[in-house]
Amino acid sequence: MALVPDNTLITATPEEGRALALKMARLVIKATQPDDAVREKLRPDYAGDADSLISIAHVVAVEFATIAAANNYWR
Amino acid sequence: MALVPDNTLITATPEEGRALALKMARLVIKATQPDDAVREKLRPDYAGDADSLISIAHVVAVEFATIAAANNYWR
Amino acid sequence: MALVPDNTLITATPEEGRALALKMARLVIKATQPDDAVREKLRPDYAGDADSLISIAHVVAVEFATIAAANNYWR
Amino acid sequence: MALVPDNTLITATPEEGRALALKMARLVIKATQPDDAVREKLRPDYAGDADSLISIAHVVAVEFATIAAANNYWR
Amino acid sequence: MALVPDNTLITATPEEGRALALKMARLVIKATQPDDAVREKLRPDYAGDADSLISIAHVVAVEFATIAAANNYWR
Amino acid sequence: MALVPDNTLITATPEEGRALALKMARLVIKATQPDDAVREKLRPDYAGDADSLISIAHVVAVEFATIAAANNYWR
Repeated sequence: MALVPDNTLITATPEEGRALALKMARLVIKATQPDDAVREKLRPDYAGDADSLISIAHVVAVEFATIAAANNYWR
Repeated sequence: MALVPDNTLITATPEEGRALALKMARLVIKATQPDDAVREKLRPDYAGDADSLISIAHVVAVEFATIAAANNYWR
Repeated sequence: MALVPDNTLITATPEEGRALALKMARLVIKATQPDDAVREKLRPDYAGDADSLISIAHVVAVEFATIAAANNYWR
Repeated sequence: MALVPDNTLITATPEEGRALALKMARLVIKATQPDDAVREKLRPDYAGDADSLISIAHVVAVEFATIAAANNYWR
Repeated sequence: MALVPDNTLITATPEEGRALALKMARLVIKATQPDDAVREKLRPDYAGDADSLISIAHVVAVEFATIAAANNYWR
Repeated sequence: MALVPDNTLITATPEEGRALALKMARLVIKATQPDDAVREKLRPDYAGDADSLISIAHVVAVEFATIAAANNYWR
């Protein structure tokens, strides 16, 4: 299973870098809980819980920091 | 849906960079829970809870670190 | 509303940088919960709770990391 | 017990770097709880809990940041 | 009240840098909860709780990262 | 009490750096709760709890980031 789509951190734009951050976070969760049905059942637990949503935003922020640095901030 | 407004991390000032950090965090939450009604219903859960507010501040701090670096700290 | 006092991350000293980190964290909380009365009512919740105080210290540490880098660590 | 497989942070690709991040996080947990049976019994606790899965994703993001920097982001 | 002892991040050794990280974290908590008696009453809450102790270690790690960078890692 | 073994962040290998990260995290906990008997009694609380183990892994990841940077990633 791929953990890094296209096996690169380099993206054309910040928007694509942000989407990559989201995907990379999800792929780690998929690697830890590979059962699609279980993950699907967990969705309401976090999508309807403010603290879980904030935690997800935190993880994406950390992933994005790495991707942004890799792309020299798309300056 | 846009995850990075204007598709850039570059802002004119720290104040604008800070506002961008807030927006980017919110857009990840919107991407995870796209239903406006559900998000609106969750608002009292976090806006009236000290620990949730602290967690939000944490996420914004992490996003801002990336944006500040991208802008060479507006030196 | 200002999110970054004086719209700069540059301070004369580490002490002022630390105070700025505290202020910037508080201003994000104020932006999320603008009602002064609600925030005031929440104060005992976090000021009397060890884990909340530790979480606040964590946020300040993250904000300060950015401010310290912006000031080249006041070397 | 090895904490860093092959005793290096350098990997050929982002994908391998990501796999290393996952392994390094697991090895710290193994060092803290060396009993295989106990760790195995804990698996359903985190693999079936949304917040635990998000926390794991957070740790991997932090480990990966270090590994990505070590590899100069595989640019 | 001082938030940064001696108003500098520069220390002679890693050991002193680590002690500074601990002090700076405590001073933020003191700034948030200035009542010595309340803080003293909270001590058993965190000193006897594994998760609180881990959270404290986390904050110190973040503060230390900044101090270590400020000192060019005492290389 | 020493907070940084040998008073240096420099290690010969990533493996030794990782071991140092674990030790430094433990020494902060020891500084906060110096009573060996209390810490020993807390062990089952975290060693048998998935979320505590994940939190420990998080702290070690943050400490290691600093140590790895100090050692220029052992490149």
